[in-house]
Amino acid sequence: MDIEFMKRALELAQKGEGFTNPNPLVGAVIVKDGTIIGEGYHQKYGSHHAEINAFNNAKEDVCGATMYVTLEPCAHFGKTPPCANTIVQKGIKKVVIALKDPNPLVSGKGIEILKNHGIEVVCGVLEDESKKLNEIFIKYITTKLPFCILKTAMTLDGKIATYTGDSQWITNKDSRQYVHQIRNRVSSIMVGIGTILSDNPKLNTRLEEKIGNDPIRIIVDTYGKIPLDANVLTQKSSAETIIVTTELAPKEKLRLLKERDAKILITPLKDEKVDLNYLVNWLGNQKIDSILLEGGSELNYSALKAGIVDKVNVFIAPKIIGGNKAKSPIGGNGIEFLKDAININSMEIHKFGSDFMIEGYVERR
Amino acid sequence: MDIEFMKRALELAQKGEGFTNPNPLVGAVIVKDGTIIGEGYHQKYGSHHAEINAFNNAKEDVCGATMYVTLEPCAHFGKTPPCANTIVQKGIKKVVIALKDPNPLVSGKGIEILKNHGIEVVCGVLEDESKKLNEIFIKYITTKLPFCILKTAMTLDGKIATYTGDSQWITNKDSRQYVHQIRNRVSSIMVGIGTILSDNPKLNTRLEEKIGNDPIRIIVDTYGKIPLDANVLTQKSSAETIIVTTELAPKEKLRLLKERDAKILITPLKDEKVDLNYLVNWLGNQKIDSILLEGGSELNYSALKAGIVDKVNVFIAPKIIGGNKAKSPIGGNGIEFLKDAININSMEIHKFGSDFMIEGYVERR
Repeated sequence: MDIEFMKRALELAQKGEGFTNPNPLVGAVIVKDGTIIGEGYHQKYGSHHAEINAFNNAKEDVCGATMYVTLEPCAHFGKTPPCANTIVQKGIKKVVIALKDPNPLVSGKGIEILKNHGIEVVCGVLEDESKKLNEIFIKYITTKLPFCILKTAMTLDGKIATYTGDSQWITNKDSRQYVHQIRNRVSSIMVGIGTILSDNPKLNTRLEEKIGNDPIRIIVDTYGKIPLDANVLTQKSSAETIIVTTELAPKEKLRLLKERDAKILITPLKDEKVDLNYLVNWLGNQKIDSILLEGGSELNYSALKAGIVDKVNVFIAPKIIGGNKAKSPIGGNGIEFLKDAININSMEIHKFGSDFMIEGYVERR
Repeated sequence: MDIEFMKRALELAQKGEGFTNPNPLVGAVIVKDGTIIGEGYHQKYGSHHAEINAFNNAKEDVCGATMYVTLEPCAHFGKTPPCANTIVQKGIKKVVIALKDPNPLVSGKGIEILKNHGIEVVCGVLEDESKKLNEIFIKYITTKLPFCILKTAMTLDGKIATYTGDSQWITNKDSRQYVHQIRNRVSSIMVGIGTILSDNPKLNTRLEEKIGNDPIRIIVDTYGKIPLDANVLTQKSSAETIIVTTELAPKEKLRLLKERDAKILITPLKDEKVDLNYLVNWLGNQKIDSILLEGGSELNYSALKAGIVDKVNVFIAPKIIGGNKAKSPIGGNGIEFLKDAININSMEIHKFGSDFMIEGYVERR
């Protein structure tokens, strides 16, 4: 039964996707005599934690009940009072936790408060599922760096466009809709100037079933080449556009971009380009906990080489186009020998209509 | 119960893999009072058909029994007498068939004989499974052309080698062993001269658990560039090597190749290269029912463009290597627009350790 109730708590947690960043996704369920009497989840950054929402929604007296929560209850006064103390006050008898707080500064402190007050604590139920759900939060809270997902879409023969540059569309509608779900989930989306010049994308979130959150747009543009009428500069959006550039960009161009409400970040030069490691540090400081990288093959390679990519989502369409000159998802100079290849761990396959999507994690070196 | 007995017959059929070409794989099971009393399969080209082997292995009197057979019993005098007649003589009461004979010249004739003698016939049990098992036979018997499987192995970013040409190995041992199982199954293996020059492969069958059948080696070599000491010419093998070339090859070189027991096929020129359509017609006439194409990216593209490929097996390793100049599985000029892409149908995924393999069928235009 523990597993069933925790599954429900995880389901609830997921409902907060796109709204809690850089906070975690958390769900909580209160159970009495084998029946759920209260449910809650963390709905929005700055609002109530999941536990408090579960208490507020409880249909019966919670005294003596068991609480299932996907993340260790907090022990600190932040934007809200510590949940561990509230749990004690409410007379909860037992707390089942999926995942200990990954933040090393507070990990275990919530559990300590509960135990000190005689509450039975069980930890580790569906821990892996909770970790997966909060992979962005875990990376961000432990490193202060954003979790970066490299997304690409290729044909079965490894091409992202025909040799003439035709790339719309490689994948089907289901795949593309899933990408909008990821856009809704992350804080930012990043592309290179090549993508802006060739596709003039909007880089917003277009969900079919609900209104989504636009991610902050990050344009890597070493020389400041972005046209002033690019969609990312002119369209209406709740999210800002950041032009990441270097001293190689003309000052007058940067002034014009600022006039158009673009934010400008100037990074040091690294190999004559934007320094991506500087960039992710800066983003982390801005509380941007995640990046969806939809780069062209050059930016993708630079990002992998800089070690900033955590996860890859490679969509594969049931098409073959051939072409020695057709671009592949990861370009650049490339790695010299196979023994030095970047390894991808825990590859899993997902199906979107007749497309496949391979998801995997970049092995740390 | 029909399904269980037919599954067993299909299992038996599979045991003939690598030995029956260009005959089909067939299994047969004789059942009396719900118990299997005889089993057989077509073991080798020219030897007994599955039905006869099942009769020969029967432990009891087969009179009044039911026979399960994966392919319609034959009605013609070939290398063996017609099985349909034998079934009648043996007093079988009911015959359950997976697949009608795909050969339009004889299809239905076996069933007719059975029915004319008052035997109950059920057709279509596990038909799709039997079709899949005999995809080579079906293509060959209906077109007199070999069934061609394009096999390639790439990284997750669509490369078959690093930019320096390092390609050993992209995939893991499990994947490579599976390729040897395919080599064991097919009549021939085909590569381009580029692969011979860069890798000097043996192109034989190396199975771990048993001795395999070497496929006939087909080397597409427009200019007759193959070195006389290439492994495919000097190694011991039960199968021959065919050099497929054109009038552009030096006559003296062809003489030297013949001295080394290589067979030479000279095709007309098509786009200044070997004419692959001429080649597959010739192979079909030689009773070569199948080709495993392990070409480099040029030959792969030419083969797809010529429309000779039926199935693709794309192995994908959990590695990323990048590189604008690294080769991808299908090269050549490529297709200009996505709307003209070669579509791949019925894509399925198979897992070999941490590698994936995507299998699919080339859509006929």
